[in-house]
Amino acid sequence: MGIPEWNWLIDYASPYHGYMYGVKQHIYSGSTPFQRVDIVDTYTFGRCLVLDGKIQSSALDEYVYHEILVHPAVLMCPSLPREALIMGGGEGAVLRELLKYPSIESIVMVDLDKQVVDICREYLPSWHESSFNDKRVELLHIDARKYIEETHRCFDIVISDLTEPVDEGPSYLLFTREFYNILIKRLKPGGAFSLQSGSLSLPLLSSHAAVKNTLECSFNYVCTYHTYIPSFDSSWGFILASQDRDPGELDAVEVDKHIEKNGLELKYYDGETHRSMFSIPKNIRQALEEEHRIIEDDNPVIIY
Amino acid sequence: MGIPEWNWLIDYASPYHGYMYGVKQHIYSGSTPFQRVDIVDTYTFGRCLVLDGKIQSSALDEYVYHEILVHPAVLMCPSLPREALIMGGGEGAVLRELLKYPSIESIVMVDLDKQVVDICREYLPSWHESSFNDKRVELLHIDARKYIEETHRCFDIVISDLTEPVDEGPSYLLFTREFYNILIKRLKPGGAFSLQSGSLSLPLLSSHAAVKNTLECSFNYVCTYHTYIPSFDSSWGFILASQDRDPGELDAVEVDKHIEKNGLELKYYDGETHRSMFSIPKNIRQALEEEHRIIEDDNPVIIY
Amino acid sequence: MGIPEWNWLIDYASPYHGYMYGVKQHIYSGSTPFQRVDIVDTYTFGRCLVLDGKIQSSALDEYVYHEILVHPAVLMCPSLPREALIMGGGEGAVLRELLKYPSIESIVMVDLDKQVVDICREYLPSWHESSFNDKRVELLHIDARKYIEETHRCFDIVISDLTEPVDEGPSYLLFTREFYNILIKRLKPGGAFSLQSGSLSLPLLSSHAAVKNTLECSFNYVCTYHTYIPSFDSSWGFILASQDRDPGELDAVEVDKHIEKNGLELKYYDGETHRSMFSIPKNIRQALEEEHRIIEDDNPVIIY
Amino acid sequence: MGIPEWNWLIDYASPYHGYMYGVKQHIYSGSTPFQRVDIVDTYTFGRCLVLDGKIQSSALDEYVYHEILVHPAVLMCPSLPREALIMGGGEGAVLRELLKYPSIESIVMVDLDKQVVDICREYLPSWHESSFNDKRVELLHIDARKYIEETHRCFDIVISDLTEPVDEGPSYLLFTREFYNILIKRLKPGGAFSLQSGSLSLPLLSSHAAVKNTLECSFNYVCTYHTYIPSFDSSWGFILASQDRDPGELDAVEVDKHIEKNGLELKYYDGETHRSMFSIPKNIRQALEEEHRIIEDDNPVIIY
Repeated sequence: MGIPEWNWLIDYASPYHGYMYGVKQHIYSGSTPFQRVDIVDTYTFGRCLVLDGKIQSSALDEYVYHEILVHPAVLMCPSLPREALIMGGGEGAVLRELLKYPSIESIVMVDLDKQVVDICREYLPSWHESSFNDKRVELLHIDARKYIEETHRCFDIVISDLTEPVDEGPSYLLFTREFYNILIKRLKPGGAFSLQSGSLSLPLLSSHAAVKNTLECSFNYVCTYHTYIPSFDSSWGFILASQDRDPGELDAVEVDKHIEKNGLELKYYDGETHRSMFSIPKNIRQALEEEHRIIEDDNPVIIY
Repeated sequence: MGIPEWNWLIDYASPYHGYMYGVKQHIYSGSTPFQRVDIVDTYTFGRCLVLDGKIQSSALDEYVYHEILVHPAVLMCPSLPREALIMGGGEGAVLRELLKYPSIESIVMVDLDKQVVDICREYLPSWHESSFNDKRVELLHIDARKYIEETHRCFDIVISDLTEPVDEGPSYLLFTREFYNILIKRLKPGGAFSLQSGSLSLPLLSSHAAVKNTLECSFNYVCTYHTYIPSFDSSWGFILASQDRDPGELDAVEVDKHIEKNGLELKYYDGETHRSMFSIPKNIRQALEEEHRIIEDDNPVIIY
Repeated sequence: MGIPEWNWLIDYASPYHGYMYGVKQHIYSGSTPFQRVDIVDTYTFGRCLVLDGKIQSSALDEYVYHEILVHPAVLMCPSLPREALIMGGGEGAVLRELLKYPSIESIVMVDLDKQVVDICREYLPSWHESSFNDKRVELLHIDARKYIEETHRCFDIVISDLTEPVDEGPSYLLFTREFYNILIKRLKPGGAFSLQSGSLSLPLLSSHAAVKNTLECSFNYVCTYHTYIPSFDSSWGFILASQDRDPGELDAVEVDKHIEKNGLELKYYDGETHRSMFSIPKNIRQALEEEHRIIEDDNPVIIY
Repeated sequence: MGIPEWNWLIDYASPYHGYMYGVKQHIYSGSTPFQRVDIVDTYTFGRCLVLDGKIQSSALDEYVYHEILVHPAVLMCPSLPREALIMGGGEGAVLRELLKYPSIESIVMVDLDKQVVDICREYLPSWHESSFNDKRVELLHIDARKYIEETHRCFDIVISDLTEPVDEGPSYLLFTREFYNILIKRLKPGGAFSLQSGSLSLPLLSSHAAVKNTLECSFNYVCTYHTYIPSFDSSWGFILASQDRDPGELDAVEVDKHIEKNGLELKYYDGETHRSMFSIPKNIRQALEEEHRIIEDDNPVIIY
């Protein structure tokens, strides 16, 4: 028998549950003022970006996460988007997906942690595909909340690709009722807001539910969707929010038409995938309804 | 800071990937002639049945697994089933779900490992809800293959709830082309066959794909469906097979009508759940198409 | 390749360092009012008693621990001991070693946790070898501190076999300056006190050093000794204390004579073993000298 | 509660027993033609060199290992050594200790793996303290066995600091009877040979015992000594071999004199340390006697 693998990354979903990833090679390891950063090559999922011990995305399946964060939101817009805002998204893959639309005239990407972005630019080239060099991209390393509060610009589409809203984490104030009340004013009429919003696994979905409740304070339409992300070992929740259209109206036919008309080459998202993602199992629907907490600036929903 | 949890069950999906479950209390630990058996109370998923280190089902979500193994198959039958066959299913929860139909006149359950069944009867009462005591149930502790080869009975519905078809494992010969060729003769006209068939997570789905290919040698209609099982930390694959009807024709409306008409009280399965389960994401559809192996008596598809 | 072992006990020396033990079978698992108790059969060390996640002793090497806790202390007594007191020692193996001396007339064993003792009596027969049934043994399940404070008896030998003096742990008040001041009055002239006193591994020895410092407030002679305990994966520290004789004076010849004269059948302790145990490496001697803290009733030396 | 540590190095002593080290930062990760190499900064032991998942030495305690590999052997020489040979020893710390003796005129160091040496030179400066730059050092990256077979030089002292003699490992043929028969001819009269020789923990000592037996085929005097190495979580075995003097004759007084006379500044080794190291506990002595296997070129003693 061979030597068992000895380098393990353990991503703890809770103090009582974790996922072990065998690491073939450690590519980068360091700390920024905001978080610890590791780039590792795992056996199962290839290269991974790890922030504070949590896998953010992997070479094997990052396209799943990034396609569905972008394209359903684009589909919500009454016409193809011209101006976009990304909060977080340091890997550059949200950029990559958005830039597939020639209609895009400008993207503001606000990611607090310049070092993480620089690390991603160096070590994750297949994620960003040099999107950072596109002239339409304006990259800001400031607090996204401050930016939103002070800008006068409005956007067709806003995408939130942030780490979890853990109390005292760097992203927490970008998930509160107060913040969404400000954000909504920066959306153009018909504009769409999409975000990654945590695990939708039954024992772990309270954070997602609270984010959803919080968004419902500001937006007319707030819709959970989900998919299984292999490198997260979990069913993962996303949210589409809009003032003007119920995302639940989107159907598989419309999705397939959109992809074809725009000549999109997607590996994950299509009509059938959309139908699976936007149909929520009964027990998850019930669990979401049973959570009533709202996240506020001074009222975090503490999660692990 | 408190003492970190020290009792861990590690379910290895591969030598390079594992799931760690904190164990609050070990309830039972032993070996049968066929496998090691543990009953553990985990923090996250409550009580779990563990065979050879693999979680088979958990208190938190066993209803997900067992409802969808049974009710879609029942729905496929032209009329409500009267005679059913279960292979494996030691927890007794497949029994429980089937017995919700008053039409059921007899169920033959064939599980090789009497000790496992006895342990489940003692320690998993909320799984079987005393279904083993129902007079319609005939419980046999013999090799299911031998039973199928020798019986002259035919069934409206056959459900396979077995451990993985690992080469040299106790279940392997119940997943082969040769076996399915015999099994199909024991299905009544219009009869349905459903089975759990392994992970549908992208890096782990080759076993599922091979089972599907193998079934397609015998059955006219073979349909993959899937859901996320929290205690498996994975998207899980199931298969519905039939000679007479394409399971893909089932739709959400039909599912909801069936549940209502039969007064079923289900926690997971309904029309919207069905739609999510029977819509397969694009990358999974492609990966399934790329696997061409077939499992035969002398040609195992070796998996970890 | 076979299935990797899946049942692991992880004994954390700190949040950053742990020892993993593959568990072949879980024998007992439960909680008493004072602690969680597990009896496990490990592959490497055989049966182990585990309290709050810490291995207390293993079938493979419990004799190492128990022989050296008892016999050097006996050797310190001017004549063979007649009356002994044991604090803790639930496995019954300290009893077993003491009862090898026919001179013993009575042993008071005070272990707070009756359930742990009962579990040991049932599951660890090779530890206690029915010593609990010896008529000279008086077993009390009360707080040892209270017993010492209230008793008027004096003892030739006192042995402390307790869990670590972690703040808020059940044993903490049996390691304080105040306690030792009382205890010393219960020793007969020439009497010896021995105790297990935590890891002597360089990065983990501050607890041992503090216990030693604390004992030096009360006793004239306080002597660290050490051995490697395989199932602890660590060099382990013990202490011999006396008012009347320096344990450092004991030598290998005296040890071998004592063993021969008393016809002791020991597997670990002899003259050469003694010499190894009572010679302390230079870096450990220095580290012990650099620690000046003393444990007091209201001043715990917090350790993990 | 904080986030639990997520980066772990697991050093498996066997498939059923392992040591977990929390990794603060990964410094280097790569593969040479001979082995995988990691340099990690652990919380407990600081920087560590890891070859094929096994910690070779740590900043916290490398001096323990390297002092005792060198100075007892020097003490065995009838006069201070002039010519030395090191096999392995890539960290450069054996060099460092040997170069403390001004008598040294030349050291041949033969380490097969140039890349490991280069990595150590870059990342482990406190290990080698620039010893590689000393003009007396000749560094060869060839097979040490070939070197020994072909050289005509003789040495006062030979030190073997190699990875374990695992069958098919790169070091195996440097631990065989045939090799020692050749090596002994390269020792000057009175010359000493010392080596690290694996764990001396009771359940793991068969490899050490076999190496000892093998050496006894060639050398008149072969003496086991041991110490606890914190970063190995184990009692570790070393061997001193000589044709001319029994290492067991060395005593604490001689050691202290040697250190003083030569003005050695040592952190671990002194007379009392020596006494502890060269006294072997009874159960270990017996276990060593019970192992009779000898390692030969075509007869490996397979260990994990």
